[in-house]
Amino acid sequence: MTRILDSVDSPEQLRALTVPQMEQLAREIRREIIEKVSVRGGHLAPNLGVVELTMALHHVFQTPEDQLVWDIGHQAYVHKLLTGRRERFHTIRQFGGLSGYLRREESPYDVFGASHASTSISAALGIAAARDLQGKDYKVVAIIGDASLTGGMALEAMNSAGSLKKNLIIVLNDNDKSISENVGAMSQHLGQVRRMQTSPSYQRLREMAKDSIERLPVVGDKAREAAGRAETSFKQFMMHSKSGAVFEELGFKFFGPFDGHNIPLLLDVFENVKKIEGPVIVQVVTKKGKGWDVAEGDSTKWHGPGAYDYTTGVIKKNANDPLTYTEVFANTLVSIAEQNPAVVGITAAMSEGTGLKKLQKRFPERYFDVGIAEQHAVTFAGGLAVGGMLPVVAIYSTFMQRAFDQIIHDICVQNLHVVFAMDRAGIVGEDGQTQHGVFDIAFMRMIPHMKIMAPKDEEELRHMLYTAVELDGPVGLRYPRGKGLGVELTTGLHKLEVGKAELLSPATIEAAEKCDVALFAYGSTVSQAELAAKELAEEGIHVAVVNARWAKPLDQELILRLGQSTKHLITIEDHVVSGGFGSAVLELLESKGLTDIAIRLIGLPDTFVEHGAPTILKELYGLSSAHIKEVVREQLTTTKKQGVV
Amino acid sequence: MTRILDSVDSPEQLRALTVPQMEQLAREIRREIIEKVSVRGGHLAPNLGVVELTMALHHVFQTPEDQLVWDIGHQAYVHKLLTGRRERFHTIRQFGGLSGYLRREESPYDVFGASHASTSISAALGIAAARDLQGKDYKVVAIIGDASLTGGMALEAMNSAGSLKKNLIIVLNDNDKSISENVGAMSQHLGQVRRMQTSPSYQRLREMAKDSIERLPVVGDKAREAAGRAETSFKQFMMHSKSGAVFEELGFKFFGPFDGHNIPLLLDVFENVKKIEGPVIVQVVTKKGKGWDVAEGDSTKWHGPGAYDYTTGVIKKNANDPLTYTEVFANTLVSIAEQNPAVVGITAAMSEGTGLKKLQKRFPERYFDVGIAEQHAVTFAGGLAVGGMLPVVAIYSTFMQRAFDQIIHDICVQNLHVVFAMDRAGIVGEDGQTQHGVFDIAFMRMIPHMKIMAPKDEEELRHMLYTAVELDGPVGLRYPRGKGLGVELTTGLHKLEVGKAELLSPATIEAAEKCDVALFAYGSTVSQAELAAKELAEEGIHVAVVNARWAKPLDQELILRLGQSTKHLITIEDHVVSGGFGSAVLELLESKGLTDIAIRLIGLPDTFVEHGAPTILKELYGLSSAHIKEVVREQLTTTKKQGVV
Repeated sequence: MTRILDSVDSPEQLRALTVPQMEQLAREIRREIIEKVSVRGGHLAPNLGVVELTMALHHVFQTPEDQLVWDIGHQAYVHKLLTGRRERFHTIRQFGGLSGYLRREESPYDVFGASHASTSISAALGIAAARDLQGKDYKVVAIIGDASLTGGMALEAMNSAGSLKKNLIIVLNDNDKSISENVGAMSQHLGQVRRMQTSPSYQRLREMAKDSIERLPVVGDKAREAAGRAETSFKQFMMHSKSGAVFEELGFKFFGPFDGHNIPLLLDVFENVKKIEGPVIVQVVTKKGKGWDVAEGDSTKWHGPGAYDYTTGVIKKNANDPLTYTEVFANTLVSIAEQNPAVVGITAAMSEGTGLKKLQKRFPERYFDVGIAEQHAVTFAGGLAVGGMLPVVAIYSTFMQRAFDQIIHDICVQNLHVVFAMDRAGIVGEDGQTQHGVFDIAFMRMIPHMKIMAPKDEEELRHMLYTAVELDGPVGLRYPRGKGLGVELTTGLHKLEVGKAELLSPATIEAAEKCDVALFAYGSTVSQAELAAKELAEEGIHVAVVNARWAKPLDQELILRLGQSTKHLITIEDHVVSGGFGSAVLELLESKGLTDIAIRLIGLPDTFVEHGAPTILKELYGLSSAHIKEVVREQLTTTKKQGVV
Repeated sequence: MTRILDSVDSPEQLRALTVPQMEQLAREIRREIIEKVSVRGGHLAPNLGVVELTMALHHVFQTPEDQLVWDIGHQAYVHKLLTGRRERFHTIRQFGGLSGYLRREESPYDVFGASHASTSISAALGIAAARDLQGKDYKVVAIIGDASLTGGMALEAMNSAGSLKKNLIIVLNDNDKSISENVGAMSQHLGQVRRMQTSPSYQRLREMAKDSIERLPVVGDKAREAAGRAETSFKQFMMHSKSGAVFEELGFKFFGPFDGHNIPLLLDVFENVKKIEGPVIVQVVTKKGKGWDVAEGDSTKWHGPGAYDYTTGVIKKNANDPLTYTEVFANTLVSIAEQNPAVVGITAAMSEGTGLKKLQKRFPERYFDVGIAEQHAVTFAGGLAVGGMLPVVAIYSTFMQRAFDQIIHDICVQNLHVVFAMDRAGIVGEDGQTQHGVFDIAFMRMIPHMKIMAPKDEEELRHMLYTAVELDGPVGLRYPRGKGLGVELTTGLHKLEVGKAELLSPATIEAAEKCDVALFAYGSTVSQAELAAKELAEEGIHVAVVNARWAKPLDQELILRLGQSTKHLITIEDHVVSGGFGSAVLELLESKGLTDIAIRLIGLPDTFVEHGAPTILKELYGLSSAHIKEVVREQLTTTKKQGVV
């Protein structure tokens, strides 16, 4: 059977379709997404939720002249399918393939990239301001989920937009779900509005609108006009809703809620809204996972599943896979919390992602999900610490960037005991550029009072978390995304000595001093370092391998001892070189006035790391054992040749 | 005449006073603040505005058991006077003296430190959550200005507080002023409410309340009870105000607005509010500068004046002082904007502080004040850049920390041309720990696509700003607080070569190669470096002095050339050593495999820099010419002794 989808290469072609054809296309798009994403996983439920919404936006707005700014961008698969990327769609999230988010280089339809939440209104407002300064008149539309409104930045932008009075349309994609359950007063508030949707008067109005559209020749100007009148009734009604009141207080015209899966309704709503002056909010209610029972039933599980069987709806999982770092972290935190009643956990809308759901189940009152609000999360933790609790803030490395100032200003200046558990540190893989956690060592290390560490494996993570809880002052802990190494997990927990690294091989420090090179590996890079050392030994090159454990404070004694004996140091880290662990070692050598030690830093270059499978990326960006071996050989050759050391 | 103030050493003594005594005390406190602050300047208008409010809070709440969390903290002078710090008050903002903000080490009454805006609700909510987990029942009160509500973090916290339902009192100190004019929809909204205050029905109610209080024996329990009834009328009335509606939607009970200078009224309001369960907002209207005509008349000018004559109200200013960096920046930006119509300026509530007021006057439509909303400011700039404009974002170095993630995620990943003008970089002096801008080189440098520079003087700042505008991609520019060096300012503007440093002395590169040491100074440290070199020459030590200009990209060629010829490099910067300019130079030497160059880094140690006069601090923390000379001598002696080089 010929698909309509196969003949849609641009929004222009979409605009030529009738409503029934669009409805057919919506089904085809869902099928395409469900099938293609099944191969390697991806953001499924959010995309199934916005099929009709995306089609209606591209139908009504003259993209790419009109500017669609998507918040986060993980819901842009439909957008990609409709804007000339259908044939490359199967490459999504793979190295060299389409990005799983928006990317300006990828298409003129990708107006503003993202992946962190709550940025779209700011970006759209900036574009609208630029448009007005240049006397142009294209439309600017921000599409933002209700969960993203818990991010303060979105509220800053709304405050600004409400007063600048630019022509700007904000589509509030209200699905009552971020990745975790939605939280906060704003969400509860929107919930009330959603319940109104089922009220008889609302339903009556909706039916009226539907009828008036269905009885008219499809999507002509007249239909729109007529439907526009029907919409007016909606507006009259909904502008008096409580939700509307809040937004209107902020200077917006508010319309909604509307059924986000009703194509003719959406077409009319957007046609009407397009003509309105000033900032407008349109609330559209959609269902995550829409159109596939399996995903609709548990949209959290299906938010971003791995590979699955699309005929059965079973997510592929290897039963023999080791626990993930996240799981080990969560289990350990619960054990610690059982022993220490002061311990509380804080997440910023990542209850499942960080594993804190387990703490919630065990100690619901000692668990706080503050919404997509990393800044607040950190300072809230500061308050908890001042009040005598012991907060563990679990935020992905990349999102911790949002709270940089709070870590300095609210935690470290006051030397409060707050533990920062940074999951997804280092290369995260398919999510790409904006999601890799490759700046945290540098931005944490520069802050006075901070201590930071990273485990070599999931067993060590347990003891590091325990250590962080047992210490005082601010402590940061980073660990990678995904499966652990599969090492055996013990049951006890012990405190690691602050600033003490672990010599892994050879067995004694005296033997290590006789090695050709001393290799200090930080965190997840330890295993590659060990592999490289083993293989180099076969070439007759002897490398002492150290699990650095601490990037701050450094194990000065061991670094200086092995540096001075071997005269060859190498550091490796899953992080940018600039300001990272290796850079700290350089500063140490400088502070000691040591210039007779050859040192090489292995880490990520000064470029944004692409998306793709972690193994590919680590190979490409120099974190593989093969690259380590090269650096060791090169270092020994060069310094011998130069006679420097 | 004996002052009541002289016998108040704690809130306990305050609580024993009658209302007329408290009113007398308020006058004495104002006088004390006006006189003491006049000597060296400080935050005047904000403190004059909260005299009665602070007294009422300490009177009603059982501090220090009950917890007062002040937002920003620059309005805490009254609080300090009332909590045992009266005798040290004259030392405020001086090295070794009281902090100009709150500080936990300073007093048990200082619950949570600050200086950046919008953090108090988060901290207070954390304390309230800790209290409840521990089964305690003290009160927690956050006092936040209306301007701080434009910070997204405060809104995140309100969202969280509205749903957690903790007992928490938020006092909204509504003075319609941040430092600059207030902006944004939220402010306009509060403005409407303020206008209601003058309505006849409101006034009538207020008079009723006043009467009922005045006719009763002073501040006994009965008076409170009676007044409580009068307050009920207020509540009934104001809960239906538009302002109330917004906050109540978010889950708060809302009361106000109340006259923030009426002591009996405030006592009653807080007594009532104290008994209410759940999160409460009390809107209190105060006047910045209250009680001194001069400051009331222009509260922006008197927000944080320098030394002044308190008898005449004239701010002391030396007419011969050179222009400040801020003034030079602002003048240059206006010139550039006159030539380049794409240039727009963005400030986050620091129109005067950043000098952008000048741009506003010249090109009002190309000027944007987004409120205390650094995150939004940066991404808004990204939108403007995408829309074809050329945004210059002027934010103090310390506040730029708030937008760290946006700089990475919204600007640098997309390589957008946005100029970051970071005023107040380096040691800022009397504002202390939380306000020094000593992390920006490190947090900017680690981001791919970023270019960063710093001028040696105010003339160079002009050309650097021009250069930043003429380049492409993200560019950061840092410059210090306060007066320039007084160098002559030219009229033209020229583009500096990217990554090219300036050899200042000796005159030729060949002569520089023959020096004992090459000293690379970044930004404001250049003048001290030159001074040190001049004095060392008299000792027969020859130092080549380089104005580094760029921390990214580095002038590799010059660094390597002088490094290899002199074998002695020294770097100096007004910034933490960790990850800074010197660290970048270390990474460069490492990447080139150079180990035969002795290098020393001069910069700030791994500790928070105290408050005090910049000259004292620079001396203390090693940024003086004397310290530079020491390091040079030491380096030459050590390496000679070691025979390393």
